[in-house]
Amino acid sequence: MGKKIAFVAPQEKRALVWNAEAEALAREFGFEILFGDSPETAAGCDGVMTTWESPCFSRAVLERLPSVKILGHAAGSVGIVTDATTYDTGVTVISANPVMAERVAEWALMMLLAVRRNLFLCGRIRENETLDWASKRKFPVRKDATIGIWGLGDISRILLRFCRELDLGRILLYSRHGSAGEIRDRGAFPADSFEDLLRQSEILICFSSLTPETHRFLNASRLALLPDGATVINAGRAGLIESDALVAELRSGRLHAVLDVFDVEPLPADSVWNTLPNLVMTPHMGAAGGTDSYAPRILREFQHFFSGLPPQGVIDRKRFFTMSDDRLIYQKGTSL
Amino acid sequence: MGKKIAFVAPQEKRALVWNAEAEALAREFGFEILFGDSPETAAGCDGVMTTWESPCFSRAVLERLPSVKILGHAAGSVGIVTDATTYDTGVTVISANPVMAERVAEWALMMLLAVRRNLFLCGRIRENETLDWASKRKFPVRKDATIGIWGLGDISRILLRFCRELDLGRILLYSRHGSAGEIRDRGAFPADSFEDLLRQSEILICFSSLTPETHRFLNASRLALLPDGATVINAGRAGLIESDALVAELRSGRLHAVLDVFDVEPLPADSVWNTLPNLVMTPHMGAAGGTDSYAPRILREFQHFFSGLPPQGVIDRKRFFTMSDDRLIYQKGTSL
Repeated sequence: MGKKIAFVAPQEKRALVWNAEAEALAREFGFEILFGDSPETAAGCDGVMTTWESPCFSRAVLERLPSVKILGHAAGSVGIVTDATTYDTGVTVISANPVMAERVAEWALMMLLAVRRNLFLCGRIRENETLDWASKRKFPVRKDATIGIWGLGDISRILLRFCRELDLGRILLYSRHGSAGEIRDRGAFPADSFEDLLRQSEILICFSSLTPETHRFLNASRLALLPDGATVINAGRAGLIESDALVAELRSGRLHAVLDVFDVEPLPADSVWNTLPNLVMTPHMGAAGGTDSYAPRILREFQHFFSGLPPQGVIDRKRFFTMSDDRLIYQKGTSL
Repeated sequence: MGKKIAFVAPQEKRALVWNAEAEALAREFGFEILFGDSPETAAGCDGVMTTWESPCFSRAVLERLPSVKILGHAAGSVGIVTDATTYDTGVTVISANPVMAERVAEWALMMLLAVRRNLFLCGRIRENETLDWASKRKFPVRKDATIGIWGLGDISRILLRFCRELDLGRILLYSRHGSAGEIRDRGAFPADSFEDLLRQSEILICFSSLTPETHRFLNASRLALLPDGATVINAGRAGLIESDALVAELRSGRLHAVLDVFDVEPLPADSVWNTLPNLVMTPHMGAAGGTDSYAPRILREFQHFFSGLPPQGVIDRKRFFTMSDDRLIYQKGTSL
């Protein structure tokens, strides 16, 4: 008999991930899909799909939905759709985090290569610009620059694989969760401390999860530890950085930055970021190109699960506590 | 007894590759290094190192230098330092092409990622720009774009490895030399013809060697086969493309381009390229970051050779005829 799946999220968020491929897969697998924005949509369902701004499926909510065996988050971090009590239930939680991570790691690699080669300083990018041939001598490739990575989750692991493949030099990594052994096995050196990471990183890439401990952790006094001329790359969570402190460092010209995420999104045209030098920005597009795959991936994993196979991308209690807590994003806009 | 090596090239070119690491290696290996700009410098030497704008070591020249057993080119293509007669002698020819290829493939990957993600359209790159949040919907990731690669040499092989690692979608490749089997083994589809490659490529990357057959091969009628909105990426040889035809395509807005190489280098400030829209340019820096390794690599390979080990990067007669012929670069400037 066909399984019943509820896709529970605000209509405008569902529209961002539900597509023709998902529709076709649901048909292929014989899934009946119920759409709604409240948890009650899932009454009598076997599985629940969520995405950005879906309600939280805590134990109290799931106890009213005893038929639900699996919760699949068609996005990255499950921080807003589950809480610690969810993991007291027998419900399996999965996420499309691995798909998201591949695309964000690719964005980071693009920017890492661009920063390492001083593309934004050497390149003639705009129609009104003249190529400066001397720029390649003024801004030589930073091939001996130490690359610092903050955090060891899905994204960092993929980025480390790319860095190794491309022979990008010395990588230093700091993580509260990763073991020194794993960091070395993945081709990086473990930093002794976050401060040690900052002191040595000429290019710093922020991929820590956002938790109460890491919220605004990269503040003025820590940013001050970065070497002069260092570049901060952030495609993780805006809340990792004390924005005013980074603004001051960019304005003074001491640091450079490449940012994909912001405290307020969409970024208002009159934002202070739009007034700064030494700053490249993209409109929260790190995961772009992957979002089309979120819902199809969750449906495929549901099919595995209902066939008795182990689904991929499972989030358990331990993993939950190392993932970003999106409730820390105080000023919410679209999160896509 | 220590070996004698002549580094034969114009002084200003030798200065670009001879560095402290080379100096230290020469000492470590017990090599005596003789510097000069004419082949006679190599009289009585065991090996000859060359680089950009070195003289040609034809059979006639090498017959006057019977002690020379190996010729090492501290750059990429050996087109100007050897000719077909060189390969009639017993002298082993090696090149730093594999080092060059790694760096140029990395440049190409950076630009491929940037073009695929529309970085130059979506990004706020310059201080006077305002980030347009809507740009990510106007210019979505071109994840289904077919990537076309023209040529299968060292650079293309490395780029294919990167593309596979990053899961960049459908790659089509055309080569006069590569077999369909090798192309498939490396994760790409063989194009039926150059015209077939052009018709299907939304992003075209030019890495063919420059030979009498490929000189200006990508002309107006062939460029016209590319789909509307396609992007031409060239970090190979400027002479592959009929420049006036590409200028016309960019000016009309039908095509985009990303160029690292030009018919006249350094690019004059009043060049027509500086007047064009839809064009990103870098100052011949594809191999930058690798040039420091050219001379050390050649010295290490010399040491292998003199110890009776097989050196890497060997160029034989067959390979010579598939490499770029730099004599086709009519208007010469610096080639670094």
